[in-house]
Amino acid sequence: MTASGQQSNLLIVGSVAFDSIEAPSGSVERALGGSAVFASIAASYFTRARVVAVVGEDFGGEQFAVLDGRGVDASGIRVVPGGRTFHWRGRYHDNMQDRDTLATELNVFEGFDPVLPDAFGRSTDVFLGNIDPKLQAKVLDQVTGPRFVGMDTMNLWITETPADLREVLARVDLLFINDEESRQLTGERQVANAASAIIAMGPRYVVIKRGEYGAILFSGDFCLFVPAMPLRRVVDPTGAGDSFAGGFMGFVSGAAQIDRATLARALRAGAAMASFAVERFSVGGLEGLGRSDIDRRVAELDSMCAAR
Amino acid sequence: MTASGQQSNLLIVGSVAFDSIEAPSGSVERALGGSAVFASIAASYFTRARVVAVVGEDFGGEQFAVLDGRGVDASGIRVVPGGRTFHWRGRYHDNMQDRDTLATELNVFEGFDPVLPDAFGRSTDVFLGNIDPKLQAKVLDQVTGPRFVGMDTMNLWITETPADLREVLARVDLLFINDEESRQLTGERQVANAASAIIAMGPRYVVIKRGEYGAILFSGDFCLFVPAMPLRRVVDPTGAGDSFAGGFMGFVSGAAQIDRATLARALRAGAAMASFAVERFSVGGLEGLGRSDIDRRVAELDSMCAAR
Repeated sequence: MTASGQQSNLLIVGSVAFDSIEAPSGSVERALGGSAVFASIAASYFTRARVVAVVGEDFGGEQFAVLDGRGVDASGIRVVPGGRTFHWRGRYHDNMQDRDTLATELNVFEGFDPVLPDAFGRSTDVFLGNIDPKLQAKVLDQVTGPRFVGMDTMNLWITETPADLREVLARVDLLFINDEESRQLTGERQVANAASAIIAMGPRYVVIKRGEYGAILFSGDFCLFVPAMPLRRVVDPTGAGDSFAGGFMGFVSGAAQIDRATLARALRAGAAMASFAVERFSVGGLEGLGRSDIDRRVAELDSMCAAR
Repeated sequence: MTASGQQSNLLIVGSVAFDSIEAPSGSVERALGGSAVFASIAASYFTRARVVAVVGEDFGGEQFAVLDGRGVDASGIRVVPGGRTFHWRGRYHDNMQDRDTLATELNVFEGFDPVLPDAFGRSTDVFLGNIDPKLQAKVLDQVTGPRFVGMDTMNLWITETPADLREVLARVDLLFINDEESRQLTGERQVANAASAIIAMGPRYVVIKRGEYGAILFSGDFCLFVPAMPLRRVVDPTGAGDSFAGGFMGFVSGAAQIDRATLARALRAGAAMASFAVERFSVGGLEGLGRSDIDRRVAELDSMCAAR
């Protein structure tokens, strides 16, 4: 519930995909993936998640059942007749961080033109997953007075469509970006300076993602840190960043007020969800979690960070 | 004071050097440096630091005055008649992380044979800086029943003298090591597994240093994390790791008991001292700090990590 008593929900736009992955830990063919999928399932543990995305006819009951199983409202996922779903094929290096893209078949994603079901226009909170900033803007245009808007981006948009990116940036509350991309976007080497430069572009907050080293949130006034869970086994890093953002945004969406304490807890929710995501292929690690699984992992993060 | 009422002190062995450094921020010629110098000055804010090291006749009153100014007992620094002090010349890349060594003149350091003044043999705590493990062992041989022993190491000893390294490792309480070197030493990619493998080699604790991302401490039972201070300006990263270790070990040495809470505070002391060190060339950032400067930075780290 938000402070106004409205039941909170989080609108998520992003990719829905099939991922074919080779990793030192094994491989999967055409497994459920995509930023909107990881983010919405992660968010579903904290708020009511709803997705706007596009898929082909090869995306069927089995896939929708996964979203449905987590209570994700998939009514904004358009199925293009005769179309095929976005397909990514990649191979992870032994270090489980670097990866090669072997194939990217955009398919129906190439013509993605997000149109929100009417009810989605009154979403309380919004997460704009990493897609073309023009499309992110188009989604935002269709939402009336959202409370909190987070967005993700990537190097492609920083270099190819910088003006579009800056336009969306000026309209959101928070940007998720990784270390390297924050430098690319701002020209600043030191994370504190990159963060200030980003905040000067519009967002009140920026979360700089550092992979296995955790994440750091900056506002104009304060800075908050969360480590990544030191896992003994990482099976598949795909979707870690989206799961982090989904957990974070879901937590924020589910919170009555958005203050420093909420953001600190949201960072932990994000780190917990990212850690679950990488323990299995596809969304296997995010399914079937109980409240106690999440609470336990957040408690571990708290304990790692405790001052005494 | 230790629990037994003995006044605590920290014996530090390591290099004393002149560093000539070129960095994007400027350059210095033959500035005071070396692991024992950074570590002892950082430690001096928390305990009584004493150094065993070797220098040449070019190391004179000006340099000793810096140590003296921080109350560091330099009576274990042997001046080799006619000798010259270890000199390192390096250049930092624009990213302020990668660096090229332009010259390494070991000079008197090549014949370093640490012999402790009698009083040093009763040191309460010991920090074995990053030198040949044979020499680290020789220092340890001369100390009677120390309470807590920490050691540092580097890739050179991991690859060149692994057996010697393993012998010292089995005799210490804590190892400081960086991310990459922890993988090299253990063959383990995931930090939690590398830490377990190191603990199986002898130390009760391992602190894995991650540069600008902070550090993570593992024991058999728990894990503690500290971020690095997000500084707006890094002038010279030289000595950051030594200052971290010095601050950490100094804090431990000054603590009445060594438990989880002490280690959590020690991580913050280390991160604070490392952050001061990199703000100036040589030891400029570590000199003339007040208790309140350090407390303020530790409070900032606490605040960054706070769960709400």
